[in-house]
Amino acid sequence: MIVVIGYLKIPPEKMVLAKPAIRAVVTATLKEPGCLLYAFSEDAIEPGTIRIAEKWDGWDALKAHGAMAHLAAWRAALKEIGVSDREVIAYEAGETRTL
Amino acid sequence: MIVVIGYLKIPPEKMVLAKPAIRAVVTATLKEPGCLLYAFSEDAIEPGTIRIAEKWDGWDALKAHGAMAHLAAWRAALKEIGVSDREVIAYEAGETRTL
Repeated sequence: MIVVIGYLKIPPEKMVLAKPAIRAVVTATLKEPGCLLYAFSEDAIEPGTIRIAEKWDGWDALKAHGAMAHLAAWRAALKEIGVSDREVIAYEAGETRTL
Repeated sequence: MIVVIGYLKIPPEKMVLAKPAIRAVVTATLKEPGCLLYAFSEDAIEPGTIRIAEKWDGWDALKAHGAMAHLAAWRAALKEIGVSDREVIAYEAGETRTL
């Protein structure tokens, strides 16, 4: 399994503008083959920081996601909103413990 | 490295009550040895869902976190707030790709 953790920083006042685009990309991505989790959230103490959490059943599913039209639409929306900082990293999951 | 992804579900109207407790546990945890990321966020489309993302430099650091007084305080706050669902899973990171 592949686990993805990331963040995007946008102007806090643009969060309301980002919401419909987030809803669209999340809804479409959750229907993709191999997608186990796809969640966008607003940091509880850092305004303007969007947190990303994903789980995929393998690298191939994640790669296919990168080529989807709904992801291109999301990227176009982000370009308009303006992203000041970004980090998204995927990890292959090894030993797993439920906390 | 250890990556943690999780969620808690609380009554949406209690989110405002949770915020000071979140700020306290996040601020204290970020000072712990071996803590590389500790972020709580509100799901952008699911009201009442708190998303958790953590990175630790090893299982020992994560284990030590579990015994901290500030974590006990957070758990006590959550008990008062009322958690209807919860899943928190830790993964040892293998192959890593920046997206």
